[in-house]
Amino acid sequence: MALRTAAQFLAGLRDTREVYYRGERVPSVVDHPELGVAARHASIDYEIAENPIFRGLAAHREGSEEYSAYYRVPRTSQDLLSRSKLIEAGTAEGATLVLLIKEIGTDALFALKRVLGRDGYADGIQRVEALYRHCRNNDLSIAVAQTDVKGDRSRRPSEQSDPDMYVRVVEKRVGGIVVSGAKIHTSCTPYVDEVIVLPSRSMGPGDEPWSLAFAIPVATPGLRLYASDYLHGTDDSFTRPISTDHKMVETLTVFDNVFVPWDRVFYVDRPDLAGATALTFVEFHRFTAVSYKLPLLDALVGAAIAIAKANGIDRAGHVRDKLTWLGGYAETVRGLTELAALRCKLENGVAYPDVFTTNMAKWTFARDFHRAIETVQDLAGGLLVTGPGGKDWNSPEVRPVLEKYLSGAWPADRRMAIMNLISDLTTRLYGGYQAVLAVHAEGSIEAEKMAMYRAYDPSRSIALAMRLAGLEIGPAAK
Amino acid sequence: MALRTAAQFLAGLRDTREVYYRGERVPSVVDHPELGVAARHASIDYEIAENPIFRGLAAHREGSEEYSAYYRVPRTSQDLLSRSKLIEAGTAEGATLVLLIKEIGTDALFALKRVLGRDGYADGIQRVEALYRHCRNNDLSIAVAQTDVKGDRSRRPSEQSDPDMYVRVVEKRVGGIVVSGAKIHTSCTPYVDEVIVLPSRSMGPGDEPWSLAFAIPVATPGLRLYASDYLHGTDDSFTRPISTDHKMVETLTVFDNVFVPWDRVFYVDRPDLAGATALTFVEFHRFTAVSYKLPLLDALVGAAIAIAKANGIDRAGHVRDKLTWLGGYAETVRGLTELAALRCKLENGVAYPDVFTTNMAKWTFARDFHRAIETVQDLAGGLLVTGPGGKDWNSPEVRPVLEKYLSGAWPADRRMAIMNLISDLTTRLYGGYQAVLAVHAEGSIEAEKMAMYRAYDPSRSIALAMRLAGLEIGPAAK
Amino acid sequence: MALRTAAQFLAGLRDTREVYYRGERVPSVVDHPELGVAARHASIDYEIAENPIFRGLAAHREGSEEYSAYYRVPRTSQDLLSRSKLIEAGTAEGATLVLLIKEIGTDALFALKRVLGRDGYADGIQRVEALYRHCRNNDLSIAVAQTDVKGDRSRRPSEQSDPDMYVRVVEKRVGGIVVSGAKIHTSCTPYVDEVIVLPSRSMGPGDEPWSLAFAIPVATPGLRLYASDYLHGTDDSFTRPISTDHKMVETLTVFDNVFVPWDRVFYVDRPDLAGATALTFVEFHRFTAVSYKLPLLDALVGAAIAIAKANGIDRAGHVRDKLTWLGGYAETVRGLTELAALRCKLENGVAYPDVFTTNMAKWTFARDFHRAIETVQDLAGGLLVTGPGGKDWNSPEVRPVLEKYLSGAWPADRRMAIMNLISDLTTRLYGGYQAVLAVHAEGSIEAEKMAMYRAYDPSRSIALAMRLAGLEIGPAAK
Amino acid sequence: MALRTAAQFLAGLRDTREVYYRGERVPSVVDHPELGVAARHASIDYEIAENPIFRGLAAHREGSEEYSAYYRVPRTSQDLLSRSKLIEAGTAEGATLVLLIKEIGTDALFALKRVLGRDGYADGIQRVEALYRHCRNNDLSIAVAQTDVKGDRSRRPSEQSDPDMYVRVVEKRVGGIVVSGAKIHTSCTPYVDEVIVLPSRSMGPGDEPWSLAFAIPVATPGLRLYASDYLHGTDDSFTRPISTDHKMVETLTVFDNVFVPWDRVFYVDRPDLAGATALTFVEFHRFTAVSYKLPLLDALVGAAIAIAKANGIDRAGHVRDKLTWLGGYAETVRGLTELAALRCKLENGVAYPDVFTTNMAKWTFARDFHRAIETVQDLAGGLLVTGPGGKDWNSPEVRPVLEKYLSGAWPADRRMAIMNLISDLTTRLYGGYQAVLAVHAEGSIEAEKMAMYRAYDPSRSIALAMRLAGLEIGPAAK
Repeated sequence: MALRTAAQFLAGLRDTREVYYRGERVPSVVDHPELGVAARHASIDYEIAENPIFRGLAAHREGSEEYSAYYRVPRTSQDLLSRSKLIEAGTAEGATLVLLIKEIGTDALFALKRVLGRDGYADGIQRVEALYRHCRNNDLSIAVAQTDVKGDRSRRPSEQSDPDMYVRVVEKRVGGIVVSGAKIHTSCTPYVDEVIVLPSRSMGPGDEPWSLAFAIPVATPGLRLYASDYLHGTDDSFTRPISTDHKMVETLTVFDNVFVPWDRVFYVDRPDLAGATALTFVEFHRFTAVSYKLPLLDALVGAAIAIAKANGIDRAGHVRDKLTWLGGYAETVRGLTELAALRCKLENGVAYPDVFTTNMAKWTFARDFHRAIETVQDLAGGLLVTGPGGKDWNSPEVRPVLEKYLSGAWPADRRMAIMNLISDLTTRLYGGYQAVLAVHAEGSIEAEKMAMYRAYDPSRSIALAMRLAGLEIGPAAK
Repeated sequence: MALRTAAQFLAGLRDTREVYYRGERVPSVVDHPELGVAARHASIDYEIAENPIFRGLAAHREGSEEYSAYYRVPRTSQDLLSRSKLIEAGTAEGATLVLLIKEIGTDALFALKRVLGRDGYADGIQRVEALYRHCRNNDLSIAVAQTDVKGDRSRRPSEQSDPDMYVRVVEKRVGGIVVSGAKIHTSCTPYVDEVIVLPSRSMGPGDEPWSLAFAIPVATPGLRLYASDYLHGTDDSFTRPISTDHKMVETLTVFDNVFVPWDRVFYVDRPDLAGATALTFVEFHRFTAVSYKLPLLDALVGAAIAIAKANGIDRAGHVRDKLTWLGGYAETVRGLTELAALRCKLENGVAYPDVFTTNMAKWTFARDFHRAIETVQDLAGGLLVTGPGGKDWNSPEVRPVLEKYLSGAWPADRRMAIMNLISDLTTRLYGGYQAVLAVHAEGSIEAEKMAMYRAYDPSRSIALAMRLAGLEIGPAAK
Repeated sequence: MALRTAAQFLAGLRDTREVYYRGERVPSVVDHPELGVAARHASIDYEIAENPIFRGLAAHREGSEEYSAYYRVPRTSQDLLSRSKLIEAGTAEGATLVLLIKEIGTDALFALKRVLGRDGYADGIQRVEALYRHCRNNDLSIAVAQTDVKGDRSRRPSEQSDPDMYVRVVEKRVGGIVVSGAKIHTSCTPYVDEVIVLPSRSMGPGDEPWSLAFAIPVATPGLRLYASDYLHGTDDSFTRPISTDHKMVETLTVFDNVFVPWDRVFYVDRPDLAGATALTFVEFHRFTAVSYKLPLLDALVGAAIAIAKANGIDRAGHVRDKLTWLGGYAETVRGLTELAALRCKLENGVAYPDVFTTNMAKWTFARDFHRAIETVQDLAGGLLVTGPGGKDWNSPEVRPVLEKYLSGAWPADRRMAIMNLISDLTTRLYGGYQAVLAVHAEGSIEAEKMAMYRAYDPSRSIALAMRLAGLEIGPAAK
Repeated sequence: MALRTAAQFLAGLRDTREVYYRGERVPSVVDHPELGVAARHASIDYEIAENPIFRGLAAHREGSEEYSAYYRVPRTSQDLLSRSKLIEAGTAEGATLVLLIKEIGTDALFALKRVLGRDGYADGIQRVEALYRHCRNNDLSIAVAQTDVKGDRSRRPSEQSDPDMYVRVVEKRVGGIVVSGAKIHTSCTPYVDEVIVLPSRSMGPGDEPWSLAFAIPVATPGLRLYASDYLHGTDDSFTRPISTDHKMVETLTVFDNVFVPWDRVFYVDRPDLAGATALTFVEFHRFTAVSYKLPLLDALVGAAIAIAKANGIDRAGHVRDKLTWLGGYAETVRGLTELAALRCKLENGVAYPDVFTTNMAKWTFARDFHRAIETVQDLAGGLLVTGPGGKDWNSPEVRPVLEKYLSGAWPADRRMAIMNLISDLTTRLYGGYQAVLAVHAEGSIEAEKMAMYRAYDPSRSIALAMRLAGLEIGPAAK
């Protein structure tokens, strides 16, 4: 089957899916004034593949077949670099907001392949492969529901007072299983075709019912999506040049006795696989993450340079110092992302980005993002939160006043365009969204640090220290 | 005259003032759906003085007269501490948002007194004193318009291509002067009685027309206020527990050939006084600033502790580490603020907070505020930007689902109340507003550093270093 | 009895004490080429009291008695401020190196008073009081041995494979107890009169033998002091203007079946008192610590200013930025120290510095000290570690070459004097000593954070957050 | 000619060179108790090439010729990676101290090739080529004297009160030029064969006499080397496991009317080439720098891990956090160094490491080195500066006491070996040396930031920001 168009993708969303927004059932996601914006943002993924500029990057030809390049199994560093570039390009087209309707799903599929491949569980391998072919051949979009609602974070799944705090099997039938519980922070669920459900943590003995992985179409009975209205929009594109047209939506994803046929169950009752899945998926997904963060960082650096010029302060010493820091920060993330691909590990012919380097890139991104925000706000000025709105700007009476008085070293229209870009990126709903994502998406900073701690290979550094200290490395150094 | 009530204050705003909002002239500020919220927030200043709990702090009795304690001229450390406590209490009643309709005005009046007192300009001194008595005796509210629109920041006032980039005298008449130009970031202008206009920078030869200070009633012909709609509200108090009812409004404050009678002109054509005024006002005003930042910091610390408990993570080592940092940050600001009052300098019987210590408090606040935001977001979780809205919460169908799945170690209603408080404080419009204010209000971080550099007394440290190095301190050390 | 002179103090050290240095028993500490330097440095404590400039600060008159002001029990904030000033003055006379032969001992005595007073253990109270009077009336010097050698840090005292890893009672006799084990990092032990021994951690059931506090004269049989040669000196005062004449010495303090008579045992077998003692002592001692750090910080700031001038870079923007940061850092520590005294708590008529504020001061000092070092080194230049030595400087042939080529904006002799001061403070043995002390002395940064976490009063911040969130504070917030 | 042996190298140093140490002329560098240590450390460079393990890395065969791999002109990323590995390996053999007797010289030669190649100055190109062949074919060692003594940093060369503050031409003769002045911080000068002299800054009109580059043998009349005694050694290898046997020496390098024949003068009177040379050399040399910093970072990370285990604290949360940070810091520097080679630019067939990436690596290294020091000291403990010396350890009487009481989770001998390694690396003379080098060697942090600012290509980020803001990039964005 050929690649789908954006229109075909959107048409495919018109089904029986059960989505709620602001307390009400949504009859049609595509036609909804808010969710439709998100769906059309996501459809950029399909537009790119139609666009001659990006087609080489976005479409992959294998023999006579052509499919979305997201589904290409990476075999080399170059494949990983291409995947990273594709994600970066899609996000730049999405105006710094990731599209995320194939990236994350393929991350999950590649992760499941690896975990089940290592385990050798034949049924699971075959079912993952079947889903992969189904999605690839039909050019489908996929969400991944991983983070459970978790209840009391100090308790394990089986210790929770309500067993539904982690998604679980409530019944096994001949044809499949029945699952209940809820996931949270599930991105794009209302406007994708399939949802893959993965465990969110390591499990132990007693956690069997919560140790499962499966996939279902979004329009499956019992699956209820409660969409967040956090990015509820406005029509003021003057002050929100990005977020008026670009948004992503997360759901509380409730499984109310949802039936999943066996051919969609990758494994069940396998605490030993749960932690490996959670970890492997995140390892992959963080490479996606650092790839899609790059346009956001570029936009911040570029906007900082532009506003410094627009304000007439770009020659001041402290301004150059801040711009240098910003550029160094952004390019360290980019460099480490590139390096994670170059240092990839091959396993069963599949190239996996280097785990330590990927996490180092993500950690570098996450721990200084708020400082980057502060720096850009510092260069821009208080006008970020005291400036005029679109109705002022469009008023024939007020506009001349603003044009006269809000000019800097650049005319007011150009200066305010950059100012509002920064305001959208850093102070309004979209800014808050990106700030929280920096800290929490694809795992918290603490999770990244744990991943680094586990993945760090201390052999060279310990060997050197022991040699310099005149010591054998022997068992006591372990 | 007695203290005014909140109702009297609001009634006083019904005059001919020329205010624009979203491109349209506002017939009545008090009755306007957005500006009215801001005016009522400001009126808390008057409510406090009526409240027996705060009256001792908010009202000052001098002989038979009673007036607002903001107008009390501080004579001792204790007076400054009381002033600081009053500002802190008002801001806490304002739900972390400063009221700022008397604080800033009295900062300006005390600063003018000092600058003109040092200079000995008798006319100016007398006019300031007259305005002070007028405002105090009639319990008036005051805005201060200081920051000019500035045009190209790399040029001085007289070098700008448009001379109106800094407010200036365009004509002198027998009865007064005529001024033109515009100020920006003027807080509360639409809903106060008077506005004091001060220079925003040092001036030199050639800058005479821009070197003036004066005051006028807001309802003066030619004064036009273009209010920012940045904090334009919503009615969703579930997700915005603070900002639904509390807002402050800034204006682009345009002077279109405004006539100012001589008895309201403090000085004109005095480049030598301009810089001193700008600096002295900011020195005072930063003491106000660090006082009003304290409830915001307390709210962040308290919310962080609460959400850590609500999520069930408060016993984790890294969580305690973060809470300790937050507490240490907030209390360092509080401690230095207190110390700035205790170390006050007396001049002509007036107590001025110590400049170095005040700036050190502000600098401490400003340079770590974004890190504080990051820390609180880290503890709270992604639900800050993926959670339900008020309409979800109020839906009888959806509410039970949310109550079941969004509980943590605390029930969902309590957990979400704290989560939304944090969201309002850090991720939504109000959060962005506070973040930018942290960096820019009352002067940028660079301005605070310059103030510290100037105010630092190096005599003890240089003397010690020279003695330890075996050197005389002589002229070469200067 | 009157205050002793420095000569009397030094004469008092000539006794049977058992001190080892570089593997050899030291016959006379005072006459030893290295330990004698340290003893004479310590004797500055006595010189100060003889010096008219400092006598008012250093000597306290109570009725007809006069005694060292270190022994004055603080009753008010002013007493604590005076104590702090005395410590600061002594350290400045000691060229940034604390004297520490009465500060720490009185910290221990005041701490024991409080702990035993709360417990009501009459025998202990009386013995502490007796020791206090003995030391005060005879103007004695005191070391405090607290930190045990600890063995494996992951095990409690009773879990160690060798029970001597914490000092313990090995036998109880009619006349007293016999103790064994070792303390480490004990400052000044070789050249004081008495040593007070305190537990270094909280103890639990099973830890009784390790739960004791006592004091003995240094010249007690079985007490062996192994002095560190870390600060072993040179005679090159050109490159070490401070450390040629000023040093402090720490010992491994071994108790080899030392007999302690009952009147010197404050308590024994009291796990419940051990933790309280350890904590209370450190609370006091950190106030001493932040007081004695101030001259070190002043010296760094002063030297930084001087070297910037000497190099001719003091007008560069980044240099001013760095100097401002340094000054702000130093003055924040000073300000919080002052505030800890002003916020003192009275207990049984004794004034204790505020625990949270004291720890905040120490934490502020410790976590940025290395950055301060970096900043000063940055301003000074590579000459810190590539410059000439004293023999070059004193060579008639080489000196003119150095004077010609090592001049900057200041002549070479003045520039090199400051350069070497900075080198001694930051790059040589003394610099390393101060850097490690910043991190570890009086407790590590982690210990300071734990103390802050425990001492923080969250009631105001939680109350505000709960009110803003519309919640009752009820039990769930606890 | 074949590669020389270490013995041949050392024998070659026995000539008429004029070296001073501690005020006295040194008759033979190799036989000098201090300088000899440094010379033997440097000779590791030659030993490596004799060692079969390293020979493949250290020796390069080109046709029938074999020469030191330092002299290989890099043509590809792989060549640069090999060069980096060679530098890293040499430094690891040098126990974290770079050898620097060929690295820096070839950096200078490659830089001169590029600068003169761009300029097309045929005489200069030919002379550089001749020197390159001479050094390569005779396997010579080279120092580079770049940093001038500079006098008052706020003045240019021609503005100094003494014209010798920058090295300059004082006379031109038929056979060559005569130069005077002095350089500072010249590494390894006393024990290399040749010294290349480069300008240290950009020059302008009027600076002609100071705008020159040349090379001379160290044993040239009038060249006087005043060696710093900063790293003057001790024989206590217990407490200084590295620095007892490894040291580098810097000189004040004085040119007292030194005659340089024309074939050793690369250019003279060329202000236009001076800045380009200074910059290009430093660009190359920083790639050397980040390569040789890696073993130092590895040693810190390895020692930190080892001491955490030795102390028994490696399972504590805050310890893991600190180790993770250390590892992330070290590996970011390593990753960016690798990337600088992978992103090399080809010019005239020569591969130059990417300037922005190289500087980013160096900047990353430099701005967190002191924090790394602090972290390692934090994990190690106060014993770094209060522990026993070698004479204690070697005393039959004291040793058993130390073995008993200084054990941790590791026995005392192993624990103290790591402790002393850390003490040598961070607190003693060698530690101070490395700390200052981190800030100043190969340019200060400010210099690295300036290099980053200049080398940053803003086109992608500005283009994205302008597009998102709806603006053309036109001239106003420039």
